[in-house]
Amino acid sequence: MSITPPSPDRALASREARLACRTGQITGPTANVALGYVQGNLAILPERLAADFLRFCQLNPKPCPIVGISEVGDPRIPALGLDLDIRTDLPRYRVWRDGELVEEPTDIMAHWRKDLVAFVIGCSFSFEEALMADGLGIRHIEQGRNVPMYRTNVPCTAAGPFSGPMVVSMRPFKPRDAIRAIQITTRFPSVHGAPVHFGDPSQIGIADVSKPDYGDAVTINPGEVPVFWACGVTPQSIILQSRPDFAITHAPGAMLVTDRRNTEFAIQ
Amino acid sequence: MSITPPSPDRALASREARLACRTGQITGPTANVALGYVQGNLAILPERLAADFLRFCQLNPKPCPIVGISEVGDPRIPALGLDLDIRTDLPRYRVWRDGELVEEPTDIMAHWRKDLVAFVIGCSFSFEEALMADGLGIRHIEQGRNVPMYRTNVPCTAAGPFSGPMVVSMRPFKPRDAIRAIQITTRFPSVHGAPVHFGDPSQIGIADVSKPDYGDAVTINPGEVPVFWACGVTPQSIILQSRPDFAITHAPGAMLVTDRRNTEFAIQ
Repeated sequence: MSITPPSPDRALASREARLACRTGQITGPTANVALGYVQGNLAILPERLAADFLRFCQLNPKPCPIVGISEVGDPRIPALGLDLDIRTDLPRYRVWRDGELVEEPTDIMAHWRKDLVAFVIGCSFSFEEALMADGLGIRHIEQGRNVPMYRTNVPCTAAGPFSGPMVVSMRPFKPRDAIRAIQITTRFPSVHGAPVHFGDPSQIGIADVSKPDYGDAVTINPGEVPVFWACGVTPQSIILQSRPDFAITHAPGAMLVTDRRNTEFAIQ
Repeated sequence: MSITPPSPDRALASREARLACRTGQITGPTANVALGYVQGNLAILPERLAADFLRFCQLNPKPCPIVGISEVGDPRIPALGLDLDIRTDLPRYRVWRDGELVEEPTDIMAHWRKDLVAFVIGCSFSFEEALMADGLGIRHIEQGRNVPMYRTNVPCTAAGPFSGPMVVSMRPFKPRDAIRAIQITTRFPSVHGAPVHFGDPSQIGIADVSKPDYGDAVTINPGEVPVFWACGVTPQSIILQSRPDFAITHAPGAMLVTDRRNTEFAIQ
C-alpha cells in the first residue's frame, strides 16, 4: 500500500486513509490504520426505516453510539470529514437485500439511492487505543486475532421493526486491570463506554466463552476475568434480523476512518 | 441524644455532631451522623514518627488518603472545622503504648502533648453515601452490620518503621452494579477511590471471605461478586504493627465528623 505523503492541505492521516480506500489501495481491515482517529461502523438504510433505526440507537446508546448521520440521499457527512463520501471511502461494503448478503463491493456508487440514510456508529478501536496507552494489553491484538464477540440474552430496547439482543465484545483482564479498564472506557461514552458485564458469561446468556458468535476466541489466563463491552456489531445484527428489503453495511473490520480524534470523544 | 438546634452561627450538622461528642452526648459510632459531611479516621503520633508516617501515607494514597493534619502540638485542624479540637471532638478514642491498648477515653485532654501530630484519614462513609444516592444497596448497611474488612497479602510501600499489608473493606454487588460502583468511587480519590480488587478473594490473600479480620461478615448472594476497596483501617493496623511507644486513634466506628462535604471531595 502506498499513500501520498502529507501535504499542507491534506495533512491528516485519516484523510489519507480515506483516499486510499477511495482509490482502491485499501480494500481490507482498517485496524492500525490512521491511529488516533475515530473509526466507525456503517449502516445505510432507506429513509422509510431511518427514523425507527435512529430511535433504536437513541434507546440503546451503549451498543449503538451514533457518531454521524447523513442527510437523506446525501453521501457526505461533513462532521466526520469535509471531503468524506460514504459511497467510496470505506475499504469494503456489504450489500443486503431482504436480509441476505448479495454483494461485497469496494464502493457503492452503483447502489446509492436518493432515499438512503447513512449511520456511522462508534467502534471499540477508540477505547482500545486508550487502554493500550495506559499500558493494558489487549489480548486479541496480542494474539493477532479479531476481538471475540457474543450474542447475549440481554434485550435491546425495541423501536419499530428493530429489536433483538445486545452483542458484546470481550477482553480478558486481571481484576486490577479490569478496574482500570472500566475507569478508562467510562471516559468514552461515544464509543460504547464502560463494560456491561464481567465475570460469569452465563449471567448474560453466553454458554461457552471459547466459542464466540463473531470474531475469534482468545486465551483467558488463570486469574483473569472476561470483561464484556457493548459492541457495534449489535446494530448490524439487529438490522439483519429485521430483514429490511435493502441495507448496506461495512464489511467486518473494514471501517470508516473519520477525521475526528479519539481523544475528542473522551469526556475528561 | 439531644442536640442544640441550629443557630445562625452554628448551623452545620457536622459542628452540632462535634459539639455532641465534645459534651459527651455521642460516645459511640458515628454512622448516620451528620449525613453529607466527611468523616475521618484518626491517627495521632509523636513528631519523631510523624514525618515517616506522612511519607507512608503519601506512598499509599488508596488506603491512607490524608484529609487533614495538625501542626505539631496544636489540637486544631481548621481546614476540617474552624472550632475543631481533636482532643475532644471524637466520640471515643483508643490510647496505645508500645502497641498495647491501654485506655478508651471519650476525650484525650489528659494525654495531649506538645509533640503530638494528628492525622485525619478519609473514610468510606463518603463514597457509600454516593453509592446509595445512585440506588446501589450497601449490604452491610442493609444487614445492620459493620463493613467486613480483611488483611490482604498486598504489601503497602514501606516508609521508615511503617510497613505491612493493606487492609480492604468488601461490599458485594452484581457485576453490572460493581461496574457502576467502580465509576462512582473513582470520583472520590480522597476517600479510597476505586476498588483495588474484585472476585476471587484468594488473589489478594483472603482465605475465607466469610471470616473478616475486622467488622462483620455479610451475605454474598448468588450472581454477586465481592468488591474490595482499600480501607482506612490500614494506617491503624500499620501503626500498631510498628509498635510505637505512644499513639492515639479513634475507637472503631467512632470517627471524626468534619465540616467538609462529601461532594467537595468528588473530582467531577
